[in-house]
Amino acid sequence: MVIDVENTVKEVEKEIEYLKSKTEKPKLLSLTTKLNGSIKAYLNSQAEIAKKYGIDFEYIKSDNLYEDIKKYNKDISVDALFIAKPLKKDYDDKQVAKLINPKKDIEGISYHNIAAMFYEDEYFIPCTAESAVKILEDNLNITGKKIALMGRSYTVGKPISILLQKKGRDATLTLINSKTKGQKEITKSADAIIIAIGIAEYLNEDFVSKGQKVIDVGINVENGKLVGDAKKTISKICDVTPVPGGVGNVTSTILMRNVYRAKILNRGF
Amino acid sequence: MVIDVENTVKEVEKEIEYLKSKTEKPKLLSLTTKLNGSIKAYLNSQAEIAKKYGIDFEYIKSDNLYEDIKKYNKDISVDALFIAKPLKKDYDDKQVAKLINPKKDIEGISYHNIAAMFYEDEYFIPCTAESAVKILEDNLNITGKKIALMGRSYTVGKPISILLQKKGRDATLTLINSKTKGQKEITKSADAIIIAIGIAEYLNEDFVSKGQKVIDVGINVENGKLVGDAKKTISKICDVTPVPGGVGNVTSTILMRNVYRAKILNRGF
Repeated sequence: MVIDVENTVKEVEKEIEYLKSKTEKPKLLSLTTKLNGSIKAYLNSQAEIAKKYGIDFEYIKSDNLYEDIKKYNKDISVDALFIAKPLKKDYDDKQVAKLINPKKDIEGISYHNIAAMFYEDEYFIPCTAESAVKILEDNLNITGKKIALMGRSYTVGKPISILLQKKGRDATLTLINSKTKGQKEITKSADAIIIAIGIAEYLNEDFVSKGQKVIDVGINVENGKLVGDAKKTISKICDVTPVPGGVGNVTSTILMRNVYRAKILNRGF
Repeated sequence: MVIDVENTVKEVEKEIEYLKSKTEKPKLLSLTTKLNGSIKAYLNSQAEIAKKYGIDFEYIKSDNLYEDIKKYNKDISVDALFIAKPLKKDYDDKQVAKLINPKKDIEGISYHNIAAMFYEDEYFIPCTAESAVKILEDNLNITGKKIALMGRSYTVGKPISILLQKKGRDATLTLINSKTKGQKEITKSADAIIIAIGIAEYLNEDFVSKGQKVIDVGINVENGKLVGDAKKTISKICDVTPVPGGVGNVTSTILMRNVYRAKILNRGF
């Protein structure tokens, strides 16, 4: 079966509606260091979704990203900052994480927000990680369940490993990397699989078993088409989120909710 | 077999010797919110080990911990700060993590240092976690190996889960908590077990198998004696670090090395 994320999106939208009633129109500014086709497409879709939720949106091509971050960190007309990836070669993701104002950091990548997540005192957490965990929890009571996590990126795998350790979640997590032996046995015996490795259709029928939940975080371009890290056809065996239309949809909605959260954090109710 | 940590201690001592040759005598200040028997004993042993490595040491009973942290954060006569645990009830570990100057934070608990560890850009990392990983790596090539990790505290389990995801380490980690089903099967099939749950002698013969490495991080008082989270007798089946004299010894040495690192960080070579 294909997992429908509609209800998860609606839940996030409910929070947006609530926050909207408490504050004025917020402003989201996205900065990008290059404007190629795929970044343009992403920013155009961000513009659309921002409009849908009543958010004032603008994007700027930045020729001096670090300076611009410092500038907009302080600019009170901007509530939320989004930094489009990938960055131009001369820039460093970690430097961005160090610089960005945690109160405007809707992607949850700043040093402060990462540490707050570690200490279970989080407000903004890495948005794609939050999305994956939310979809999983909406589809499975994970307490005492086995979860296989593939991938350990700063934005997805690693934060998910921290989020799933949170007390009250109490899942048993196995972290799989490219050097892991017996990957298929581990994934097959799990109750759920989260995959975020960026390899098109890596997770095929050999990795899954009946009744499992598979959260596919991958977005890869294959022959001009978007495909996930999991093969679509595994949905005959187990339940899997679609690509596109799965994790990505929830993430976009979470980002917009975070714009409202940022507005309220910076101005107060 | 009992794992001898002597070589691991010597390795850390080598770095201490090197740093010592590069700087003046550093000053370590420990703050405690109460002075009961066990904290006094700990601070006295800290005084001894500081003396051994040529470190100027003092401890103060603080009646206003947060204010004192802010004060000594700025005091240039103090290079390194240690906060003795447990804190008095009215204080909060997380608040300490937020306040402490990352450059004096030899325990690696500050927000900045936790995030730096997450981004693999670490300088000070939670000292007991570093100790456990160091001993493990000194006794096993962990690449591609299965490691069972029991415990998810802020100071040990959780940071270990982050450290073992670091690229180049590439171990396959399974995180076990109290709700985990089939704990014994998981631990038995692992190449190594790290246990940090604070339950005396929890890990008995039923959890281990031949040739495994067991890193016992627990320190519990049982009938007036110090015992680990693992039963001593498992050393007939597998290799296990002793309690006392294992992880704790390496941790104390790491703390002293960090005092020198802090001195150099704050004053420069």
